[in-house]
Amino acid sequence: MLIRVRRKIKSLFAQVKIITLTTDFGTKDWFVAAMKGVILKIAPEARIVDITHEIPPGDIRAGGFALASAFPYFPKGTVHVVVIDPGVGGRRRPIVVKSGGYYFIAPDNGVLSLALGRERAVTVRELSNRDLFHQPVSRTFHGRDIFSPVAAHLARGVAFAKTGRKLTHFQQINLPECSRTAQRVAGEVVYIDRFGNALTNIFSTDLKSRAPEEWTLTAADKRASGIYDSYESMPRGKLCGIFSSTGRLELAMNQTSAARRFRLKIGHKVALSGRKNNRSPKG
Amino acid sequence: MLIRVRRKIKSLFAQVKIITLTTDFGTKDWFVAAMKGVILKIAPEARIVDITHEIPPGDIRAGGFALASAFPYFPKGTVHVVVIDPGVGGRRRPIVVKSGGYYFIAPDNGVLSLALGRERAVTVRELSNRDLFHQPVSRTFHGRDIFSPVAAHLARGVAFAKTGRKLTHFQQINLPECSRTAQRVAGEVVYIDRFGNALTNIFSTDLKSRAPEEWTLTAADKRASGIYDSYESMPRGKLCGIFSSTGRLELAMNQTSAARRFRLKIGHKVALSGRKNNRSPKG
Amino acid sequence: MLIRVRRKIKSLFAQVKIITLTTDFGTKDWFVAAMKGVILKIAPEARIVDITHEIPPGDIRAGGFALASAFPYFPKGTVHVVVIDPGVGGRRRPIVVKSGGYYFIAPDNGVLSLALGRERAVTVRELSNRDLFHQPVSRTFHGRDIFSPVAAHLARGVAFAKTGRKLTHFQQINLPECSRTAQRVAGEVVYIDRFGNALTNIFSTDLKSRAPEEWTLTAADKRASGIYDSYESMPRGKLCGIFSSTGRLELAMNQTSAARRFRLKIGHKVALSGRKNNRSPKG
Repeated sequence: MLIRVRRKIKSLFAQVKIITLTTDFGTKDWFVAAMKGVILKIAPEARIVDITHEIPPGDIRAGGFALASAFPYFPKGTVHVVVIDPGVGGRRRPIVVKSGGYYFIAPDNGVLSLALGRERAVTVRELSNRDLFHQPVSRTFHGRDIFSPVAAHLARGVAFAKTGRKLTHFQQINLPECSRTAQRVAGEVVYIDRFGNALTNIFSTDLKSRAPEEWTLTAADKRASGIYDSYESMPRGKLCGIFSSTGRLELAMNQTSAARRFRLKIGHKVALSGRKNNRSPKG
Repeated sequence: MLIRVRRKIKSLFAQVKIITLTTDFGTKDWFVAAMKGVILKIAPEARIVDITHEIPPGDIRAGGFALASAFPYFPKGTVHVVVIDPGVGGRRRPIVVKSGGYYFIAPDNGVLSLALGRERAVTVRELSNRDLFHQPVSRTFHGRDIFSPVAAHLARGVAFAKTGRKLTHFQQINLPECSRTAQRVAGEVVYIDRFGNALTNIFSTDLKSRAPEEWTLTAADKRASGIYDSYESMPRGKLCGIFSSTGRLELAMNQTSAARRFRLKIGHKVALSGRKNNRSPKG
Repeated sequence: MLIRVRRKIKSLFAQVKIITLTTDFGTKDWFVAAMKGVILKIAPEARIVDITHEIPPGDIRAGGFALASAFPYFPKGTVHVVVIDPGVGGRRRPIVVKSGGYYFIAPDNGVLSLALGRERAVTVRELSNRDLFHQPVSRTFHGRDIFSPVAAHLARGVAFAKTGRKLTHFQQINLPECSRTAQRVAGEVVYIDRFGNALTNIFSTDLKSRAPEEWTLTAADKRASGIYDSYESMPRGKLCGIFSSTGRLELAMNQTSAARRFRLKIGHKVALSGRKNNRSPKG
């Protein structure tokens, strides 16, 4: 009996769509709540999950980074809403992109570049169907008036084609990429997290030919102790490397903020140089 | 088939009530979670939405402002709980107000003034039915012991009349209102948001006789560049006005914090003076 | 009809499990969202409630304190996930403890000590069943890869015994306890909340023999004004005591931060001395 009820619940909830929110709205004001109210009026059954609202105001790269890091962990069918929108009310278009089983709703200002940059199977539409908007549409808060209500309508089953006219592309911003040779991988710090770990644009897949211990790591002209498997195994007080949970090379310290201790900043250069003959670190 | 399931979900969820929370409890402690636990014990199906928990401790005006700005975006039937309660355990009464299809649950200290100030069709009751409380009732945390459980019972369908004895009024606090003549509207800054936009107590409806471009805007003795339609259209580096998404006149800058740049504070005077003959700004 | 629908909703939702999250991950990054995505992929019906994510990085005591303060307010069957995990990827084991109708999922580093310290009826298992993990398992983010997915499986009805092998105990950390004689109770400050209230390890039950007014309270060598029933009844500007909503003796001030005003810190000594003949405070 209990099992039957559970199955029924699961089958009902499996139809319920998730809407994620990534914004620079902070949490001290009522902005995010107004978005949620608008969503729940249209789609009372939608599940709303905050990715983060603490993107620095207008920081399109940081917003894109948070989205790109979180979105793959959500079930297919999730609608991801991103409102980092310094150009609100101006000429930038509101868009929706369908890709990999997800919808991405955002201003067309490059904030989706990192999440969808290498993805080819995308379809883009402008949010031009005003029937799906919250009325009246303000010039300063499209998160509430355009992005949220369209997300709620998609979650409720409104057809993607109804959102607006098809576009041929969406805006990409140039993100720094690492350069690779057999002897050297050169990249930079692209994000610093709460723990003071500095994430880079070097991925474990960029090192295919050699094992982690066969590289010398330098960051902002400091030589790191090496690349480790876990924070706990890092020698205390030393700058170390680790391949993090996103697959990115990360500069870190055991139980300390590497960014604070070594004053690491976004844009600092990071390099891996192949060791000849696989010598020991101090060789 | 899918459509039938979706309809069923929608009809089920349309019966589910939303409870919003606005507090000064912050998010570093467990206070908000204890409220949510108490709610979910009573009403496991309730949807809980945070408006904000970052109201400065005891700031009744800021709490009222957040509530007033967010509540109309929620579906009718929503129960709004506001706990800015410096007098907890003292003489102030816990109340519930029914108005416009919503319930508002709060200490009777004026925190509902802005949301309900001009509303006539309200009914007020004291939360005096102890059967609806969490037991034992502490003297320091009525958010957990009184406001949350009563909200949950209302969301579950307990009758409004069961919450306690009828009151004839609830406490109002005086909020600054703008003064208007044909030639001049004078108000003040009443809220500063995360982006450094300074919201005033002047509304677009206060300007009925003239178009926005026919007014000269001054704020804290600085003359603003004018009133614009969007942030993007504002000249960079200039203090500007805009009618924001709440209908309020807002002092803002294009991609910069106006509050920080011009040291705007709550209480600073703001005025609109009608231009004679509609001259150009520098005329 | 409405009542029937409501009953049906209640019976459905009463089967839905709650998962609470307590971490030191903060809210600026995507970490918590990744955990929620993983949970909702496995258990789309689960209710997720944040206790707090603002535990100072690696602060096992503060995390344990938040959990211990919040967990009893949740319905039986709730799965509590705690990720304060400075040893992630190292030798500490991931565990689940069954106690009092709840599940507690955490690294075995003592973070559960305060919540479960005096509880005898506990069963402990190591999370060793890799079938319940998110694959691949990283070395740096077990919150996403181990703790969340196991919580979701338990919420979905997977048997406790399937989580892994039985353990005989879990790690306890020594927490300061107060000392009691008939004339004196001596403890210390163990937590400071957002309002600047300093919570101690002295409970109202430690004072059984005398009424609150028969004790003299000193904190960090300052003599407090007395023990009061509500914040509002405290004389302004004075350091006072109150038995808070957790049952703990708390150092507080009326509408002011006691911690800031009196520079109270965790570890500061607090004592209650019995008054002879119940003299007046200044007697």
